[in-house]
Amino acid sequence: MRLPLHSLSLISRSLSDRLSAIPGRRVCGAAMRLVQFCRQGDEGGVRVGVDRGEGLGVIDLKAFDPSMPMTMRELLEMGAKGMQCAQRALEVSPAQCVVPFAEVRLLSPVLAPEKVVCVGMNYRDHCLEQNAPIPKEPIIFSKFPSAITGPFDDITLPDESQEVDWEVELAFVIGRKGKHIKEEDAMSYVAGFTVANDVSARDWQMKRNGNQWLLGKTFDSFCPLGPALVTTSAVTDPHNLGIRCLVNGIAVQNSNTDQLIFKTEQVVAWVSQFVTLSPGDVFLTGTPPGVGVFRNPPVFLKKGDVVECQIDQVGVIRNNVV
Amino acid sequence: MRLPLHSLSLISRSLSDRLSAIPGRRVCGAAMRLVQFCRQGDEGGVRVGVDRGEGLGVIDLKAFDPSMPMTMRELLEMGAKGMQCAQRALEVSPAQCVVPFAEVRLLSPVLAPEKVVCVGMNYRDHCLEQNAPIPKEPIIFSKFPSAITGPFDDITLPDESQEVDWEVELAFVIGRKGKHIKEEDAMSYVAGFTVANDVSARDWQMKRNGNQWLLGKTFDSFCPLGPALVTTSAVTDPHNLGIRCLVNGIAVQNSNTDQLIFKTEQVVAWVSQFVTLSPGDVFLTGTPPGVGVFRNPPVFLKKGDVVECQIDQVGVIRNNVV
Repeated sequence: MRLPLHSLSLISRSLSDRLSAIPGRRVCGAAMRLVQFCRQGDEGGVRVGVDRGEGLGVIDLKAFDPSMPMTMRELLEMGAKGMQCAQRALEVSPAQCVVPFAEVRLLSPVLAPEKVVCVGMNYRDHCLEQNAPIPKEPIIFSKFPSAITGPFDDITLPDESQEVDWEVELAFVIGRKGKHIKEEDAMSYVAGFTVANDVSARDWQMKRNGNQWLLGKTFDSFCPLGPALVTTSAVTDPHNLGIRCLVNGIAVQNSNTDQLIFKTEQVVAWVSQFVTLSPGDVFLTGTPPGVGVFRNPPVFLKKGDVVECQIDQVGVIRNNVV
Repeated sequence: MRLPLHSLSLISRSLSDRLSAIPGRRVCGAAMRLVQFCRQGDEGGVRVGVDRGEGLGVIDLKAFDPSMPMTMRELLEMGAKGMQCAQRALEVSPAQCVVPFAEVRLLSPVLAPEKVVCVGMNYRDHCLEQNAPIPKEPIIFSKFPSAITGPFDDITLPDESQEVDWEVELAFVIGRKGKHIKEEDAMSYVAGFTVANDVSARDWQMKRNGNQWLLGKTFDSFCPLGPALVTTSAVTDPHNLGIRCLVNGIAVQNSNTDQLIFKTEQVVAWVSQFVTLSPGDVFLTGTPPGVGVFRNPPVFLKKGDVVECQIDQVGVIRNNVV
């Protein structure tokens, strides 16, 4: 099944209107699909926008209110004021602030976060696939922010690896600063969800670098992300979403986020024992079964492949391998 | 031996005047000790300064030239223009731009870099200490930038670890963007050197988290850094410097950077195969022998300890354990 890119925001909006009545529950009470984009022909200019859904274009937030910042990270750092402005922009949608989709190039919804935190071995069915025990604690590793690339940008195969693999993952983005966050409070620190591909060079991850996964995970372009930061209110249950990866149109991963061992709340609580979380921090929650390295024989990405990662209600990213 | 904090910049300046005659060799031809600081009573206001040495105070770069940025990372991103301005400020040293040391609180010379890249097992004598083979390739791991703390700030012992250890390390900072950098060009991408303590929770590094070192390395405050970014021209030979760690005044590590297995040039070339390096990226090059975990019996930091890391020509950082 293919999900149209902008189909779900309107449906979910009415639901979120009800949910957002619960005070203090969320970073952002409104159901929105926040994006970063540049206008065609203005490649340097990052802008924050609100996707109107149904192909109705993107509202340029700074055009709507010049006091708004140019990046999602800064918008999140503003807290409620920024989110309320985005919500107002969506409600009002003045024509002069709407950029038609034909003029929009979507970027990753967060650029230059302080952290890209990744969870390994976090799907029950992915552990079974590799005959690995179910972890008793989350296994945390990282990518450098330089790995992030846009939802429809290219994945560059490095000459240094012959074993580049796909991993569709539900990602979430931190909305406010916190340390030692309790599980029951965790969702109030999450701004929203997005789709990630945790592209992995298995040779470097599994056979080199003293078994530290970092290098195999962090080549430039190894973290396609997007297409939008879908606020928590716009997702009915983040832990019950269909999640799929297609390579050249063929489904290679097909699972549900209900297979997650450590859910969003547990991951937030766990990691915030160690580090202060900050607005814009990106978390990749782990991948379901079906990766190339555990196939018999193993399959890896090659130039010309098209990798599409889909998560119900969150969106689709599609990246050419070059 | 204790090194006075500001003693070496004047001595090295004349040397660097000669070295800087080699065109295109360095990010910055001038021998300088660049710092980030805030004025006492203005804790929020990060400023970039040039240490005049000999306790003669710090030149506030933005006071000298209002077009200069507020952070080191932005200064480095400016390239030659920023460095030339800092050099001019040092030469002119107008009295109204000089902040006396009594009014200066030194911060880490880089805050919020895109990357903190660390090299493991990179001293011959440190490998011998743990009966480990000399690595054939650099072993690369990372800390999150949130671990960085100032050169004289506290190291906070987390409740979550009982095995917090010291690791004095020579650090360097990237001065300009690059990918696939050749060893022979590598030093032209390095802005300068500084002192780091790669504080490590051995329980989390060695016994938990699926053997991924990240969590044990990245608790908040686990990367004291400073006191200055000492430009490459101000260091005669970065690979022949005395390097020491003292705990409560007693030398626990005492070696020389000539024991480094992979030197600055090799580390830059190696890591830039994987990721684009950017101005402000911080590299920790590994620690010599004498860490607490390999002592018999092991020794770990406790509240009230004072850890001092010294590298000849680069400087001294001193952190209370709280």
